[in-house]
Amino acid sequence: MGPTGRYGVVDTTSDVDADSLRTDIERTGDFGSVAAETGRGRTALPADDANVRAREYLLDRMEEVGLDVRVDAVGNIAGRWAPSTCDPNAAPVVAGSHLDSVPRGGIFDGLLGVYAALEAVRTVRDSSVVVERPLEVVSFTGEEGTRFADGVLGSSVAAGELSVEDALDLSDGRVSLGTALAETGFRGTGRLDASEWHAWIELHIEQGGHLEDAGIPLGIVTDITGTTRGHVSIDGSADHSGTTGMQARRDALVAASQLVLDVEETATEIAATGTETAVGTVGRLTPKPNAVNVVPGSVSMRLDLRSIDRLEIDRQVRAVESSLADLEREHGVETSLDIPYDIAPTQLSERIRDTVETAASRCDIETLALHSGAGHDTMQVANVTDAALLFAPSAGGYSHSPKEWAEWSDCAVATQVLAESLALLASNTERHHTYE
Amino acid sequence: MGPTGRYGVVDTTSDVDADSLRTDIERTGDFGSVAAETGRGRTALPADDANVRAREYLLDRMEEVGLDVRVDAVGNIAGRWAPSTCDPNAAPVVAGSHLDSVPRGGIFDGLLGVYAALEAVRTVRDSSVVVERPLEVVSFTGEEGTRFADGVLGSSVAAGELSVEDALDLSDGRVSLGTALAETGFRGTGRLDASEWHAWIELHIEQGGHLEDAGIPLGIVTDITGTTRGHVSIDGSADHSGTTGMQARRDALVAASQLVLDVEETATEIAATGTETAVGTVGRLTPKPNAVNVVPGSVSMRLDLRSIDRLEIDRQVRAVESSLADLEREHGVETSLDIPYDIAPTQLSERIRDTVETAASRCDIETLALHSGAGHDTMQVANVTDAALLFAPSAGGYSHSPKEWAEWSDCAVATQVLAESLALLASNTERHHTYE
Repeated sequence: MGPTGRYGVVDTTSDVDADSLRTDIERTGDFGSVAAETGRGRTALPADDANVRAREYLLDRMEEVGLDVRVDAVGNIAGRWAPSTCDPNAAPVVAGSHLDSVPRGGIFDGLLGVYAALEAVRTVRDSSVVVERPLEVVSFTGEEGTRFADGVLGSSVAAGELSVEDALDLSDGRVSLGTALAETGFRGTGRLDASEWHAWIELHIEQGGHLEDAGIPLGIVTDITGTTRGHVSIDGSADHSGTTGMQARRDALVAASQLVLDVEETATEIAATGTETAVGTVGRLTPKPNAVNVVPGSVSMRLDLRSIDRLEIDRQVRAVESSLADLEREHGVETSLDIPYDIAPTQLSERIRDTVETAASRCDIETLALHSGAGHDTMQVANVTDAALLFAPSAGGYSHSPKEWAEWSDCAVATQVLAESLALLASNTERHHTYE
Repeated sequence: MGPTGRYGVVDTTSDVDADSLRTDIERTGDFGSVAAETGRGRTALPADDANVRAREYLLDRMEEVGLDVRVDAVGNIAGRWAPSTCDPNAAPVVAGSHLDSVPRGGIFDGLLGVYAALEAVRTVRDSSVVVERPLEVVSFTGEEGTRFADGVLGSSVAAGELSVEDALDLSDGRVSLGTALAETGFRGTGRLDASEWHAWIELHIEQGGHLEDAGIPLGIVTDITGTTRGHVSIDGSADHSGTTGMQARRDALVAASQLVLDVEETATEIAATGTETAVGTVGRLTPKPNAVNVVPGSVSMRLDLRSIDRLEIDRQVRAVESSLADLEREHGVETSLDIPYDIAPTQLSERIRDTVETAASRCDIETLALHSGAGHDTMQVANVTDAALLFAPSAGGYSHSPKEWAEWSDCAVATQVLAESLALLASNTERHHTYE
């Protein structure tokens, strides 16, 4: 996994510095590093010590690259490069990702997108490209959803889905986001407004193995799946496991187990046809009282249903409703289904995808069109401006784990294409593209 | 649920005192009493404060009835009545149960058997019956298995299944049984030896609804089911629920759910034929990491398989093994099955059951032959002497709950039959019975 030298930008005289990219990711990965048998892990939750050190390191690096830095009210960080050749009032071209991690996450998720953006802007800055729009590097607050919110926190504010006030009031149970940011010096002012951006590109490590399997170094995401999460309760009767005959039972775990199989079967059927992107998972299941000698009296479950096609999610939800009705009838249990989380599928901008395709072709890099099964800040940004999401190959497809890994050479190749894409979007755009 | 007056013993001049029985159970129930919306609950774990107060109350009551009290090395309590009419060296007739409870248990489980035995001996003492064998009332230590051991602790020692030394060394994680008994004044000397008893009878509240459903006030247990407990591990692969396609998964919870259904189906099939006593339960199921957005990577399960027929338990175990082999093949998971707990079915003494039947008939009380799905101290005693287990009706079948309830009049009726049975067993036995 050694690095790698330099990669030529086709229409510039500057190259991506793979060593610098690696150094930035490794140093940031050291903040909150965790012991792991295999790989390299870190824990950096929004506004914790590791996250604050990562933020401070980013500010330093942005200033070294000559960016004008600002921090908005919810802690989103933006670094702007607006050379004299550009119209400072033009809508900027923006790239980035996030600095926070899940507990015991890897060092690429988020960090790659932030530091690839920084290195790409540095590359364009040192090139011969005549830039007509400002370029910005952005790190969003709280993408992972492990503290204060369920995820994509900073990007929800930047997209106008969540107000600054409501975001600052979010609590982790002990402290509000506003207080935590203020105490760590990262509660700035104003609001990053993604609707004012000309374009957005996020580079992320793939959280799966399609690129590795195909032997292709760059993925261009066409769609991000929608995600519907269901809370299911099944109530039966807790009885003595020795004295309650099989016919006298209302076993909540038997009913819940049938639902687990139904969810799996339905998703498998839908995935085998249609868009082939449907997945359905019961990730969380908790019986009560959960004792060896008691027939389970109740079970709570968390369902996660996804597809790039809204209708395929709806079919899964209807199948769950139908299964629950069957279980009530056949097992004498009571059931409920609540849907507290429902994010629609996101189609990504054909314009930006075409630009990235052109950039990759100039770099002589093969690309694979694929979908993202995971949510990203790009979902939020895509609601208000043209957005693209790129994937670098993941070794073994590990995600949210110290085993997560990307080859440094693949990171550099993807950064090269990102630099070229930013250059295309920020310069001579009318000559390259026809807008719809 | 008001009490009840007196019930005539057929061949004595004395009657069971229903009020005294009720008072003893209610006073003991007050030690460790817990708040409950419905019913009346208590928590009295072996050697805790509530249990010690219950033990002290029992010693007082035994002395009031004129019994010679002794406490053995593991805290088993025996009260002996050996009138001048009896041969003091004859094997005694013994009845009793236990004073400990599960956390938030009811006030009848155990207490009914101890105080019915005391009241029965008092009734015989005040009757015209000529007693030829000593009568004893016994309370065993730690029947429920909530502290120091998995259950039937004191009776295991009395039956010679567990040595006094090993029992005293058992720890609750903080203190040994020996130390806890010594500190509370209930570490006596010697060992109660059930193999020296002529007969044993335990009266217990039914932990189910057969008697209530049948409208019959007394159950005579024919068999206690054997219980086999299995620990199952299923190991698959923890993956991102959004990015891992349905065909790429090794979902441990899907496999575990199939096993839950298989266990239920097998037990239902076996119960529908054969002895009709088979039950199979997955009471405990714990997925990891148990997060909404992660395909479950592993599941641990606890199985509880019972029947009065050893072969029906063995069939259930073989079905589990067969299911696990199917799951390994079809779901790509790894599985293991461990059986740390395996208690054989117990057949109860036909001689003592016949005696109880005769006694009930003399009291003009209808009886129902049934099996016990729950374990009791009687399982241990039955290994070394002739033993019987009687059930009083449970209102609604609730057990191990403050909702557990027996009508006081039913308690008195059962105590009347118990007194008559003790009288038959302790007097003129050669005239009443032919021994095998």
